[in-house]
Amino acid sequence: MATHAGARNFDDDCALLDIGGETLVLTHDAMAEGVHYLPGQDPANVAWKLVACNMSDLAAKGAEPLGVLLGYMTGANDARFLAGLEEALAAFHVPLLGGDTISGPGPQVLGLTAIGRATHRPVPARSGARPGDTLYLSGPVGAAMMGYEALRDGSGADSTAYRRPRALLAEGQAFAPLAHAMMDVSDGLLLDSWRMARASGVTIAIDTASVPIAAPEDRRADALRWGDDYQLLFAAPEGIAPPFPVHPVGRVLPRGKSPLVVDGVAANDPAGLGYQHGS
Amino acid sequence: MATHAGARNFDDDCALLDIGGETLVLTHDAMAEGVHYLPGQDPANVAWKLVACNMSDLAAKGAEPLGVLLGYMTGANDARFLAGLEEALAAFHVPLLGGDTISGPGPQVLGLTAIGRATHRPVPARSGARPGDTLYLSGPVGAAMMGYEALRDGSGADSTAYRRPRALLAEGQAFAPLAHAMMDVSDGLLLDSWRMARASGVTIAIDTASVPIAAPEDRRADALRWGDDYQLLFAAPEGIAPPFPVHPVGRVLPRGKSPLVVDGVAANDPAGLGYQHGS
Repeated sequence: MATHAGARNFDDDCALLDIGGETLVLTHDAMAEGVHYLPGQDPANVAWKLVACNMSDLAAKGAEPLGVLLGYMTGANDARFLAGLEEALAAFHVPLLGGDTISGPGPQVLGLTAIGRATHRPVPARSGARPGDTLYLSGPVGAAMMGYEALRDGSGADSTAYRRPRALLAEGQAFAPLAHAMMDVSDGLLLDSWRMARASGVTIAIDTASVPIAAPEDRRADALRWGDDYQLLFAAPEGIAPPFPVHPVGRVLPRGKSPLVVDGVAANDPAGLGYQHGS
Repeated sequence: MATHAGARNFDDDCALLDIGGETLVLTHDAMAEGVHYLPGQDPANVAWKLVACNMSDLAAKGAEPLGVLLGYMTGANDARFLAGLEEALAAFHVPLLGGDTISGPGPQVLGLTAIGRATHRPVPARSGARPGDTLYLSGPVGAAMMGYEALRDGSGADSTAYRRPRALLAEGQAFAPLAHAMMDVSDGLLLDSWRMARASGVTIAIDTASVPIAAPEDRRADALRWGDDYQLLFAAPEGIAPPFPVHPVGRVLPRGKSPLVVDGVAANDPAGLGYQHGS
């Protein structure tokens, strides 16, 4: 994708833009029916997720949300979508600033742009991890997986974590001044750790037993490969004491043969580490 | 569509956001294949138009573009799209800051968010026209219509105005300090004048003979109802002398029975005045 003067950090999930002594954090996510959600899903949950994934991108930058713009294609139940959108905007304390509404002949496609203000500079990128850092995770992974399976199987178990994920905005703002590198776990802890290591030119060693999971122990391997929990993953010096719980899950090492080492075994290929997006 | 605290001017094409002593101007446009463009169209022209229509929204606010975010669904010829995108970004001197690329099962849907900086405050809205103002147009309408027909008929006549519309960014910045109300003509001069009158609570009287057209005289009525030229329409005191040509095409009157009077005849219905978007 082309860039011109003024763009920075294009390989991150967000772009930064300096204006009037502030740094804006900008992100855009698109979702297509049939790819990112299914026609049978509750449009209110689709709306929530669209907002949450953008808010999580801002959280990973320590940004305070200022507003969103929505590109909305009308769908099967616009009232349900708007209801979920309202709930999400209220939950994340972010205003809808504007957007565009269209009709189209095919499956629904949605886009959301989120604008935030950096609360700490430099804004943490995924590329800043340094050998000697500890790798921290903000909380357990696997809850969204369990919620998805509860919905899929109609088991009646709680599916909130999958349907209505939180975005850790307050946590991100607290971690940003401490973090050398930060990102949200959107495609799986192992895959996103691989990406942070690649971007930072280091090797990250994960100790899987130390990863908190919100799933049965026999699902640990799956929980490490599921995204959608939107936990924050960051590299920072050992011994930090932020005002939110953090869990050390690994260490940052000088770049070795592979960007990722899992329980002492080098991972040479990102395949199998998490959710891989299509082109 | 829902709004929360912080949103302003949601009925305009742009949202405004104050930050760091500056005012950001934000706009988002979505386009669907089969609705806003046809499968056979050159993707390079589609990309250009997507950028141009957003840049024109910024122009109508007197804003200087800072960047765009693209929501891109892959299509039949991504390389051609990117080529057109590059050309448009270079032409309008605006960087691509980021975005999202997805694949989808249906017709292509594109979204573009543009971020600009207001060069004059208050930022002109479409709602500020005052009785006594003159209505000005930045240049002729009808060129895009003629270009479209040249393409459609394969006549070989110049179609540049339709394929590669300009956005009048420099003009918008020059007019903003003078304008009580401003908007771009995207759906036809008559329909957009109706909208400015409605938003401003006034009546606008158009003298069609004074409207410059880039079409044969026998197509005047059509040229007044075609958008896509992206001329700027603004209400300002009589006798202004901006550094770009302007054409007085009407007058702003106290609100009468109808928001629009065309050559002395009240228009009571926006139908037939220009291009009406679907829901």
